[in-house]
Amino acid sequence: MARGRFISVEGGEGAGKSTNIEGLRARLHAAGLRVVVTREPGGTPLAEEIRRLLLAPRDEVVCEDAELLLVFAARMQHVERVIKPALARGEWVISDRFTDATIAYQGVGRRMGVERIQALRTLLLGDFAPDLTLLLDLPVDSGMQRLAARGAPDRFEMEDRAFFDRVRAAYLEQAAAEPGRFRVIDAARPLPEVQAAVAQALDGFLRQGALR
Amino acid sequence: MARGRFISVEGGEGAGKSTNIEGLRARLHAAGLRVVVTREPGGTPLAEEIRRLLLAPRDEVVCEDAELLLVFAARMQHVERVIKPALARGEWVISDRFTDATIAYQGVGRRMGVERIQALRTLLLGDFAPDLTLLLDLPVDSGMQRLAARGAPDRFEMEDRAFFDRVRAAYLEQAAAEPGRFRVIDAARPLPEVQAAVAQALDGFLRQGALR
Repeated sequence: MARGRFISVEGGEGAGKSTNIEGLRARLHAAGLRVVVTREPGGTPLAEEIRRLLLAPRDEVVCEDAELLLVFAARMQHVERVIKPALARGEWVISDRFTDATIAYQGVGRRMGVERIQALRTLLLGDFAPDLTLLLDLPVDSGMQRLAARGAPDRFEMEDRAFFDRVRAAYLEQAAAEPGRFRVIDAARPLPEVQAAVAQALDGFLRQGALR
Repeated sequence: MARGRFISVEGGEGAGKSTNIEGLRARLHAAGLRVVVTREPGGTPLAEEIRRLLLAPRDEVVCEDAELLLVFAARMQHVERVIKPALARGEWVISDRFTDATIAYQGVGRRMGVERIQALRTLLLGDFAPDLTLLLDLPVDSGMQRLAARGAPDRFEMEDRAFFDRVRAAYLEQAAAEPGRFRVIDAARPLPEVQAAVAQALDGFLRQGALR
């Protein structure tokens, strides 16, 4: 039985990740593939508990290393208990965010330094990475407008404009550095066009995979 | 103002850490020093929440890396928000356990490998370590008997005998490798004798410190 493939979907707030993940899931399902949809931080009961610790607004200042280690604790549980077992069973895994988000949000957004995160990634994950990463790219203003319509912000969503500028730039830089894995989707267009672009990127990946 | 000193107290279950920590605190207080008593994992509200995640019995298998990263997440929050600020204010800090416990419990007890933990320690803590570590050493049988008298075990206390043998050996090995920092106390003796040995070790450390 062939190993499944691991797809991550990345992007800033309001970029339409949830809608497009549902589109991806349906398209893979229609192609006869078994699909697991999951998210980071989270994806297992323990990892979801860690997610709640991370997202809860709190009076206590969370130090940078603690935040980073909680993110990786949830990720390792997610990888070992959900993602790798599913791939081994031949299922495809779509994750709402993965390590690229840690580089973008903690490494560059919060200025923790990309090297520290790369060192943790190498120590913990080795060369385990998504086979395909779809980056839903959106100008920061559009994302913030969509977000404002949603209601109460969590601890990350309360960051300022400059933070989100850094996050977006970090995502685009990672995509430029790994063009074989990333597909950048212009998420500022009307939803049907974004969905068509996502479908096209997936079909290209499926054709590529069939040639291997 | 002189920087405070950082003392950790280590030892297996039932070795009398709590009682002896109280004795240390009283003795330092009587010497005119300001003292903060804390514990790992824990020591801040967030770190205590992480402690609860770690100790709660659960159906989900917790993967080794997730456990290790949770321990270090709580530790970094504890170090940055409690221990380092107290030392900088000239206070003395007594912690019920620190990184030596991670080497003993996760590294050797759970066989996660000491190198992985040393790599994390170096990456995250650099050369930050206790100035003095008191190891309350107790034969495993005695510890388990004392423990049995206490009631419901947590997730760590449910480990088997061989696990606790490995933990004890790992502690003694670390003490042998760093004789300048460690003082090994025979905790199998009657409590008054153990308390006298702890007091003697502390007094030696205080005289040493006065000479620096």
